[in-house]
Amino acid sequence: MARAEFWYEFASSYSYPAAMRVGALAAERDVALVWRPFLLGPLFAGQGWRDSPFNLYPVKGRYMWRDLERICAALGLPLTRPDPFPQNSLHAARLALALDDSLRPAFSRAVYRAEFAEGRPIDAPATLAPLLAEIGVDPEPLLARAVEDANKTELKAQTARAAALGLPGAPCLTTPDGEVFWGNDRLEQGLEWALAHAAR
Amino acid sequence: MARAEFWYEFASSYSYPAAMRVGALAAERDVALVWRPFLLGPLFAGQGWRDSPFNLYPVKGRYMWRDLERICAALGLPLTRPDPFPQNSLHAARLALALDDSLRPAFSRAVYRAEFAEGRPIDAPATLAPLLAEIGVDPEPLLARAVEDANKTELKAQTARAAALGLPGAPCLTTPDGEVFWGNDRLEQGLEWALAHAAR
Repeated sequence: MARAEFWYEFASSYSYPAAMRVGALAAERDVALVWRPFLLGPLFAGQGWRDSPFNLYPVKGRYMWRDLERICAALGLPLTRPDPFPQNSLHAARLALALDDSLRPAFSRAVYRAEFAEGRPIDAPATLAPLLAEIGVDPEPLLARAVEDANKTELKAQTARAAALGLPGAPCLTTPDGEVFWGNDRLEQGLEWALAHAAR
Repeated sequence: MARAEFWYEFASSYSYPAAMRVGALAAERDVALVWRPFLLGPLFAGQGWRDSPFNLYPVKGRYMWRDLERICAALGLPLTRPDPFPQNSLHAARLALALDDSLRPAFSRAVYRAEFAEGRPIDAPATLAPLLAEIGVDPEPLLARAVEDANKTELKAQTARAAALGLPGAPCLTTPDGEVFWGNDRLEQGLEWALAHAAR
């Protein structure tokens, strides 16, 4: 079976439509998808950026917000600009990682919906706990597990792997042969690549 | 008739496949296309970049070259990495602008082919003069006209207009209602937008 990894950052604007689309796109093509939350902050810091490039470079930022409006309108996804942008995504990423693989996609979509559709703060337990309950997970034990050393270390390792793979941003699809496809607009291309190369 | 403007920079890597594709894409949809060469240097300088962001940020650069390899392979376009990258595109841009509108697309494609397919220096008259001859233009008078003040001023004005439109890079398609579509991978979307909005 063809396989691919979906790399996403909860603070990343283009990861929102990508997270909403990628599950169905992979299922249609019968590609097994592993969801990999990671943190862009350490990767950006390595390039000298201490903030989102969309804030550091306002021309790119203005373009991105208009582009995202058009993308979300075409997909029928509500869009509310998070304030502040980017949101602190550390807690959400730790929670997503601490969850069982099978629950991660639904929780991740719920976080993106809260953040980019409803404009709610994703660093607040008051936002995150109900999202866990919504997918049938008892919030308290998971909130505790998320901040244990083992889980923190795992998120650091996953972020280090994202850097080692050369991810230039989020979202990305990666394939077992080491190819990287960056952007919401490359999901289809990445999945087709995974299929073509699994068939060999 | 629907209208759109195609903004391109001869030094820009993604402008190569875009320039090779956009004419046919616009013709298929019956969108009237104006080709607008401009210079990214002044726009990048405004964001604090004195070199291509693909050189300043090597992670993005490595991704871009691999991405471009895949794109060119899929389109059947040869790809040779220009050395140095980016090329000095000033002469080529002035020549393209000095040409009659009807000759600009063919000349521009010829420049991209020399640069990105054959790896030839596009700041050299020895490269550029034969490309003019190839499209039926007497090189000497045009090489002279390209460096007249009127033409230099027009290129500056066109570059200033690119900045005023908020172009974050090249290539871009713009539509009469002020929308900007950035990237080789947005040509179809921009042309469809032009069509939909001309029909209103």
